[in-house]
Formats: sequence, C-alpha cells, structure tokens
Amino acid sequence: MATRELGLARRIHVWARRPETRRACAEKIWCDAVFPEAVDAVRDSDLVVLCPPVDAIVPLLRQVSPAVETGALVTDVGSTKSRICRLGSHIVPKEAIFVGSHPMAGSEKSGMEHAAKDLFRDRACLVTPLEESPSGQVDKLVEYWKSLGMEVTTMSPEKHDEIVAQISHLPHLLASLLALHLSRKPEAWQAFCGNGLRDTTRIAAGNSGIWRSIFEENKEELLRAIDGFEVELGRMRSALHNGEWAHVRHLLEQGKSYREGLD
Amino acid sequence: MATRELGLARRIHVWARRPETRRACAEKIWCDAVFPEAVDAVRDSDLVVLCPPVDAIVPLLRQVSPAVETGALVTDVGSTKSRICRLGSHIVPKEAIFVGSHPMAGSEKSGMEHAAKDLFRDRACLVTPLEESPSGQVDKLVEYWKSLGMEVTTMSPEKHDEIVAQISHLPHLLASLLALHLSRKPEAWQAFCGNGLRDTTRIAAGNSGIWRSIFEENKEELLRAIDGFEVELGRMRSALHNGEWAHVRHLLEQGKSYREGLD
Repeated sequence: MATRELGLARRIHVWARRPETRRACAEKIWCDAVFPEAVDAVRDSDLVVLCPPVDAIVPLLRQVSPAVETGALVTDVGSTKSRICRLGSHIVPKEAIFVGSHPMAGSEKSGMEHAAKDLFRDRACLVTPLEESPSGQVDKLVEYWKSLGMEVTTMSPEKHDEIVAQISHLPHLLASLLALHLSRKPEAWQAFCGNGLRDTTRIAAGNSGIWRSIFEENKEELLRAIDGFEVELGRMRSALHNGEWAHVRHLLEQGKSYREGLD
Repeated sequence: MATRELGLARRIHVWARRPETRRACAEKIWCDAVFPEAVDAVRDSDLVVLCPPVDAIVPLLRQVSPAVETGALVTDVGSTKSRICRLGSHIVPKEAIFVGSHPMAGSEKSGMEHAAKDLFRDRACLVTPLEESPSGQVDKLVEYWKSLGMEVTTMSPEKHDEIVAQISHLPHLLASLLALHLSRKPEAWQAFCGNGLRDTTRIAAGNSGIWRSIFEENKEELLRAIDGFEVELGRMRSALHNGEWAHVRHLLEQGKSYREGLD
C-alpha cells in the first residue's frame, strides 16, 4: 500500500497463503497481480519481500528461490534475524542476494484489515547485512525503507537479536505472563482492572502462534534477557522484604527516568 | 470539580499542602473556600475526603480529627486500605465514622493540572467498610461515588489489598522493573523501542514517592503477588529452555484470552 502510494515500484506482485487473502488483495488498487503460487509472484521481481511468521520465512524462501532473478534483492520482515539471515544468504541463487530487514511497526493486531499506508512512517527499521553482503545492494534496501519514511539502522543479525530480545521479546513475555498470572484469579476481579493494567498487558493480545515462533527463533537471547530481568526482580524483592524504602524509591525513580526518556 | 458539576454539595471546602495549589484552587468555580490549615477545611463538613499519598493519610486524619463534626462521614482515596481503615476508624471521634474508598481512576500523571470532571465516570470504586461500620453511613458513601458515575463494590480492607496487589501494584512493579532493566542497556537502543514497550512501561512514569508508599503499605500482599508471578516466570522459562513449544504457545494463548476479556 505504501510502496504504491509513494511510487516506489512499477508493478506489485502478491502471493498470500490463504485464498481469501489473495481474493481481498486482488481488489486493492495497490496490487497489480495476485498469484496462487508464491514462486510465480517472485518471478521477474527486482525486490522480493517475504512477510510470513518467522518460522515460515526460511521454508518460503526455499520454495521461491528457483524463481529469484539474477541481481534481485530478497528481504524479509521477521522479528528475529540470526538464523534467517545465515540460512537465507545460502538459499538464494548466487546471482541474487538476501539481506534481512525488521521494520518495527505494527501492534498487537495482525491481518490485512489492519494495513495502513502510513504504518511505517517515522518508525525504526533494522537492516541486518552479513559481513559479506555487497554494500551496494544493502544501500538499496536501506533506501527502500527510508523511502517509506522509516529511520533505518544497520547492524549484524546477532546484534539485532540481542537488542530485540531485550526491548521487544522480553516485554512481550512479561505482559503475557502477567495476563496469564491474573487469568488464574477470580473472574470478578476483572471489573476492578484499570487502564494501567490494560496498557501493561496490551501486547499480550498478540497472535500466540507468531510469538511462539519468535520465542523459538530467539530462544537463547530471550533466556538471557529473562535472567537479567530476574536479577532486577530479585533485587527489588529483597529491598521490599527488608523494608529498604529509600532504595525502593531509587529503583522506581530510575525506571521512571528511563520511561520518560522514551517519549 | 465533579462534585460541583453534579450538584452533590452545597459548599466545597479545600485544603492543600502547597500554597501554590491552594492559590490555584481558590480561582476555581468548583471551590467555595480554601483554608491554609486542614483542620479548618474539615470543620462544619458532612463529608470529608482525604486525598494525600497513602503514607500521609493517617497523619492527616490525626491532625484534622478534632474538627470532625458529629455525624460526619470521613473517607480517603488511598490505593491501600487495611492499615488506613483499621487506624482511621479509631482516630475519628466516636460520633463520626471513617470508611475507606478507592476510586480507581487516574493515570501515570499526578497533580491538579490533570483534574477532569469526568475522571470517575464508568470507573470502578472499591469501598471498604469494617464489619462494625454502620450500614447507613456506608450506603451514603457508596451513593456518593455512584453519583459521580462510578461502579461501586464493597469489600473488606484486607480483601481490597489482596486484589489491588495483584491487579495494580504487581503490574506497576513489573512495568517499573522492565524500565529499570532496560535503563542499564546502551542508550542508542532507545531509538528502536516501539509502541509495545511504550504501552508495557507507561505506568513506570508514575510518581516514585507515591508508589514507594503504596508498596510499603501493601508490602505483604505485594510480596505474595511477586511470588505468584515468579512461579509463572519460572514455568515459562523452563518451557522455553526445554523447547516445549506447544506448551509455550498454550501459555501465550491463556494470556491472550485474559487480555481480550478486559476490553
């Protein structure tokens, strides 16, 4: 939608797994052609963007790679990068290139009905080349996301996974576990839940299959993030237990400063 | 503001700790008189509402109680209730009555500049009488909050503290610790933080002094809530570590169901 709006492509070819989605796409003005087979959507393309859940990206790339053109640039929009980028660079034909992307937009909602042409504007996008990725192609991909209005940073796939484990996957896990924990309490308590809890748990409403896959792909970094969080939780627990109220306030104040810095 | 708007009081007397706040109140149309001493604002009142941070409620009540009229109803709006209600009922004169309230409105913002006359509409309010509280006066207090548009539930102060430890204080603690944890990471990472993290940590921006006091007042229940959450965190950690992906998804799905039930 944004690519058409901004005139970044001559033709936009679409494949989607579900027939209903393909039918819906065929009616959109931003879509020039819809293909029942992914491999046919990829043929003749300069830029291929793979957008399934993270566990389906590598299988999809294997399926379409015979049709990837010489000189074509293939990317994905998965929330994890290490495994996908290492495998992806070997799967695409030698004359093409795979470089991972992670446009950090979206919300707890998924599906085409939540598409918006300004979804990417002013949001962060991480592009994750390997050391051997040709810089000209990497620059082209960076320019594509910038043209959509994104703030692009490049880094290694491993650094990406370390960062998102902390700033995205850990928050999702905590929001989800808080909701899970409260789901075991009497249902009547829900009437007393305020906007604070609603905000804190909002992302727990995200698709459980998508997040299961993200957690699986980024398991090691996520476990490290949990370990780090547990240290903080343990410290706070001790401070509460021992009645160290000045320290408790100091910890709360540090959290407050960080949060205010995000606005 | 809401009390005047809805015509629930003939006269509204105000005391505030800070002279600037008293001066600002004096200019408001909902305020009939401002007093430099709390005890003078209380005199001649049928209903007294104490709204300082939780650790200042009992000291303030001690200070004003000589001026509490025969038959007057005294309440507070603190986020914790057990200690305040047990002490409060002994501090007020025998001819008056203290019953705690917890109108669950507001946000991470504090201060008079965030006042709004519809702040309470359709929000939950917990009223926490003791067994010996006269039901006529309790009903009067319930009616007051209902008149402001609130959904009122009565329960014991102890049950109140158990519930809010889980649905309000634990979420605050987790949001704050997540922000604290991330504050120890490179500052450059902040550019990659999305709306998910912003939602999850929003309440961490709340006043650290107010929350320190809430945690102190409700320490025992909060520690119990942390223990319960740690069990869930440990279970999820094991499932991730052992690669039990169907179980991970099941846990995520339970959290999702709960969160969707809050909307």
